[in-house]
Amino acid sequence: MLQFDVSNALPFLPDNWLSSRLDGLTESRNLLEKGTGLGGGFTGWVRLPENYDQQELSRLLHTAKIIQSQSEVLVVIGIGGSYLGARAMLEMLTSPNYNLLCKKTPQIFFTGNTLSPDTLTELLDYVRNKDFSVNVISKSGSTTEPSIAFLLFRQLLEEKYGRDGARDRIFVTTDRHEGTLRQLANQEGYATFSIPNNIGGRYSVLTPAGLLPLAVAGLRVKEILAGAADAMVRLRTPGQDNPAWQYAAARNALYESGKPIEILACYEPSFRFFGEWWKQLFGESEGKEGLGVFPASVEFTADLHSMGQYIQEGTRNLFETVVRFVVPLSSCLLDPTPGDLSGLDFLRGKDLRFVNEQARKGTALAHVDGGVPNLLLSVDERTPYWAGQLVYFFEYACGLSGYLLGLNPFNQPGVEAYKENMFALLGKPGHEAHRDALLSR
Amino acid sequence: MLQFDVSNALPFLPDNWLSSRLDGLTESRNLLEKGTGLGGGFTGWVRLPENYDQQELSRLLHTAKIIQSQSEVLVVIGIGGSYLGARAMLEMLTSPNYNLLCKKTPQIFFTGNTLSPDTLTELLDYVRNKDFSVNVISKSGSTTEPSIAFLLFRQLLEEKYGRDGARDRIFVTTDRHEGTLRQLANQEGYATFSIPNNIGGRYSVLTPAGLLPLAVAGLRVKEILAGAADAMVRLRTPGQDNPAWQYAAARNALYESGKPIEILACYEPSFRFFGEWWKQLFGESEGKEGLGVFPASVEFTADLHSMGQYIQEGTRNLFETVVRFVVPLSSCLLDPTPGDLSGLDFLRGKDLRFVNEQARKGTALAHVDGGVPNLLLSVDERTPYWAGQLVYFFEYACGLSGYLLGLNPFNQPGVEAYKENMFALLGKPGHEAHRDALLSR
Repeated sequence: MLQFDVSNALPFLPDNWLSSRLDGLTESRNLLEKGTGLGGGFTGWVRLPENYDQQELSRLLHTAKIIQSQSEVLVVIGIGGSYLGARAMLEMLTSPNYNLLCKKTPQIFFTGNTLSPDTLTELLDYVRNKDFSVNVISKSGSTTEPSIAFLLFRQLLEEKYGRDGARDRIFVTTDRHEGTLRQLANQEGYATFSIPNNIGGRYSVLTPAGLLPLAVAGLRVKEILAGAADAMVRLRTPGQDNPAWQYAAARNALYESGKPIEILACYEPSFRFFGEWWKQLFGESEGKEGLGVFPASVEFTADLHSMGQYIQEGTRNLFETVVRFVVPLSSCLLDPTPGDLSGLDFLRGKDLRFVNEQARKGTALAHVDGGVPNLLLSVDERTPYWAGQLVYFFEYACGLSGYLLGLNPFNQPGVEAYKENMFALLGKPGHEAHRDALLSR
Repeated sequence: MLQFDVSNALPFLPDNWLSSRLDGLTESRNLLEKGTGLGGGFTGWVRLPENYDQQELSRLLHTAKIIQSQSEVLVVIGIGGSYLGARAMLEMLTSPNYNLLCKKTPQIFFTGNTLSPDTLTELLDYVRNKDFSVNVISKSGSTTEPSIAFLLFRQLLEEKYGRDGARDRIFVTTDRHEGTLRQLANQEGYATFSIPNNIGGRYSVLTPAGLLPLAVAGLRVKEILAGAADAMVRLRTPGQDNPAWQYAAARNALYESGKPIEILACYEPSFRFFGEWWKQLFGESEGKEGLGVFPASVEFTADLHSMGQYIQEGTRNLFETVVRFVVPLSSCLLDPTPGDLSGLDFLRGKDLRFVNEQARKGTALAHVDGGVPNLLLSVDERTPYWAGQLVYFFEYACGLSGYLLGLNPFNQPGVEAYKENMFALLGKPGHEAHRDALLSR
């Protein structure tokens, strides 16, 4: 069962940390239910697990099998919410070494998220002599980075397989009706999947944007959705026992008490990229109007030997949230030779499961003693079902949290600023005046 | 040439940001020169590039060839400074996909930095049927995570190759005289390399701790050292033109002006893990006594679509430092079909090199407009020589910066806290009283 434990943060919280926020949480919850808050047009993710288009899901699973059968490599093209969710879930549920370990399913590379010629040519060269397919993911179809990557990989596909052959290897995930990518797909006859227009990029991992690559990797996407659906039923139910209410309230109270940095930690290395997904979710939802908790992430115990010193004794402006998988998938018994020089005699007969868990407990207490509030979110196992619960938990808590701050959690107006400057500097038509202004600086 | 550009931070700095710190920098520099400051016993890295033990270096390069010839995989066992530097340089100078791309050199995996049974058993299973060697790196030899990994991989080696065969596949990097790992190596007759006792873990990337794995990957380690040596000559020369002085002064001034978060950014995805190395370097050196800039890192342009919103418009408590490689290694010309739906007509005939650089320029201006000071560090190319310059630059600036804060930049007292708790919870002899105290909480 998904459990949220605030006990190691209580010494840092006022008594009324939750009670004083119940009205705000009730209001926030109602805004999410009715879609009447700021950005309410982008709350389609709230009911997504119960509204899932079963016909599209069947087609998605069938398409995944086609991609598997015809591809050594799947190139996923997307940026931001159009790749972080899929990559986070893929690595968390398999391994950061998926591409080295996969045997029956294609390797999966995420690109379209860089303008580096070194990185793009590396991947182009890698797939040149392999059978590959492309899944291009972009709601608008007009974002520069994925557009460039799609141009390059589509040219390579057409070179290798001809225009007709390429058509069978291009899979488009985009808006149902609008945008240049939809237009192109219609024109060329590419297979398409839809991102509902009431779901924004960082909330799209449970749409085909996330699920198609995950299905290609052989992950049981129906179980991911089942986990999300069960979390949905629980988290939409109002009340102070609601773990998403508690998390949103606790982090809001910690932020207001002078802790503007939150560190997400996990004791499983495969969780690393989930931290990147979480950073977008919260950073992009709350980082506006001069507000918002700064989201950072660490991998424990590795980073106890890098960021651990700072967390223990640095500027006291942070709190941490730990995600725990209660039962690891593997076990590993330690069996040092009695009296050897390993210094591990005291661990003979113990399982690494136990050792890792004691590290977590010991660290939480050390950090509390050092002045760092510690929040703990536990799910049973590192499996698709529980991953679905985790995703929905963070999405829902983030919606509540943004409304508690009085913000629109569903827009990202600041992302335009660099694009506008970049277009001007690149000489894109229509940006001439802005270009002159920039060049004169 | 390594260049530091503070111009996009000047609007946020007082006029005397540098002049008022020249005395402090002069004093800090003298402490580093003479080793008379706090932690002065750990300043061996300052002169390392000119004091390098050439005989050991020859032996290291020879050993790398032996490892290459006998191994499909090199398992590097280390935590914190005993792996971050090597992994950072390996990925930066080759690719995060090194293990997929390497053809003539062994795959390299970094472990000994986790207690996860899932992660350790995954790697044990992966190498079980491959020819592999182990490089175990630990100054003391008594850190739990690498000790456990070494136990497991040594048991596997002895199972596969017998005790004599295993002996030829174990390479130990540790203190010259002290510690259990040195003792074990002497007893078993393992080949060893030394980490000088006046160099701490996070400053050890230019010792065999970093250089042996890098040499196994086929990287030209002599060029890395040559870059570091040239940077050393320049950065040890006092003066306000010294880029390390400028960086240390600027970040100190920004910290004092209410910006406790620094984000390290780069427009090359292969730089990602260098950010992790940098986070340890600065976080562990400065994060103590309730002080220190919180170090975070991002990959651009990818993270402009995740953390970009927060950086542009969130809580105004951060500044960013961008590392730029002036000339990319590859080029990639864009050639969209005229009038197609890609929306990239305006980029026809342009190289991605140019596009990526305009993104960097446009982003810097956007962030400045959003209230984020932007520091820029440029080196010519993403090559071993310039990587050596980068490493020395950050090490030297970090030493200066720690002394400017009035701290000991070379200790890490806070790292013990979690270990003590963990040992107590694991029932390690000698920790009984502490165990009882923890269990009663």
